[in-house]
Amino acid sequence: MKQISVMRSTLGRLPIYLEFLQGLDISENENISATVIAKSLGLGEVQVRKDLNAVSGAGRPKLGYRTDELIKRIYEVLGRNDIKKAVIIGAGKLGNALLEYNGFRDYGLLITAAFDIDESKAGITEAGKEILPLTQLEEYVLREGVRIAVITVPASSAQSICDRLVGCGIEAIWNFAPCALCVPEGVLLQQENLALSLAHLKLTMNNG
Amino acid sequence: MKQISVMRSTLGRLPIYLEFLQGLDISENENISATVIAKSLGLGEVQVRKDLNAVSGAGRPKLGYRTDELIKRIYEVLGRNDIKKAVIIGAGKLGNALLEYNGFRDYGLLITAAFDIDESKAGITEAGKEILPLTQLEEYVLREGVRIAVITVPASSAQSICDRLVGCGIEAIWNFAPCALCVPEGVLLQQENLALSLAHLKLTMNNG
Repeated sequence: MKQISVMRSTLGRLPIYLEFLQGLDISENENISATVIAKSLGLGEVQVRKDLNAVSGAGRPKLGYRTDELIKRIYEVLGRNDIKKAVIIGAGKLGNALLEYNGFRDYGLLITAAFDIDESKAGITEAGKEILPLTQLEEYVLREGVRIAVITVPASSAQSICDRLVGCGIEAIWNFAPCALCVPEGVLLQQENLALSLAHLKLTMNNG
Repeated sequence: MKQISVMRSTLGRLPIYLEFLQGLDISENENISATVIAKSLGLGEVQVRKDLNAVSGAGRPKLGYRTDELIKRIYEVLGRNDIKKAVIIGAGKLGNALLEYNGFRDYGLLITAAFDIDESKAGITEAGKEILPLTQLEEYVLREGVRIAVITVPASSAQSICDRLVGCGIEAIWNFAPCALCVPEGVLLQQENLALSLAHLKLTMNNG
């Protein structure tokens, strides 16, 4: 499947467009324009036009986009036809919050299980997700073909977890532990710093 | 206090520099250079130089920065001398994870309490933070002089919570609910989309 590179901000708005388009009666809305979408959602027209252009090229003059084709393209760009499994290492409060979070499905991501060193946490969550003992990590990742992992363990054990993930073939890691991790070339690493968003807001407030 | 505008990525590294500088014996390290900091922390020298330049101007040729002044400047930019209180609305898994998260202190942010509509959640957490009934929100915010709030309630109640926050004088809102919020001019709003970081990682993986 062809994937294109879209800006993160565009990616953030695509599920909103999709929900709107899917709510339309296609028989009465065979075509749809950026203008109509912008007005219906209360968004800026220039922004909507730019977003749609990034995913589906310029619309046809006067007609705009074919609604069904636009839905299909947004689906493709969001990767909803290409579901990828991910696991979480560390079933503390944050790990559990992410395990329960529904928004990942919008982007074709399925968090299937969390692992924890504390075996007493093992079981099935209310939402039906598995929490497994950390000892089963490698076997699970290989068996289920998981390629993405989220690290929510304390900083002191993050690198050793990271090494184990790389060792069993994980290709992309999202790290919430407040420490820098080393990964070999070819493994994608994204560092999350939750405090930073709030810090940025605070500083903007001070400067405003 | 003078605040300057630094890039988000720089802001993310400042606590690392600060920890390193504070670990130095100042009597033996009166001056410190970007080169030494970069080598000690395994970071790129160009990046460190740029970061330090943003917070404290260019270092003196050959000498670099006065260690004590650099520490003071990083403190100022991080806003650690200007502690701001914040509250969380919604004491579900995510709200609790944020309430427990320690990294906010690095940026002079103190999350003092969480509020929940479910009064049975009221009490003191293991980390000593208060969870209060939502009915006490306005009184608490006014009494404690809170100006920052974090919304972690479901999308269906986020706008009404937002209106209540604005109504009692909150000036900056960090919204985790997956919906767009309306705030009056002068109120800062930052939308968080947790799924987006992982989605971005997934799409990068597909394109790689």
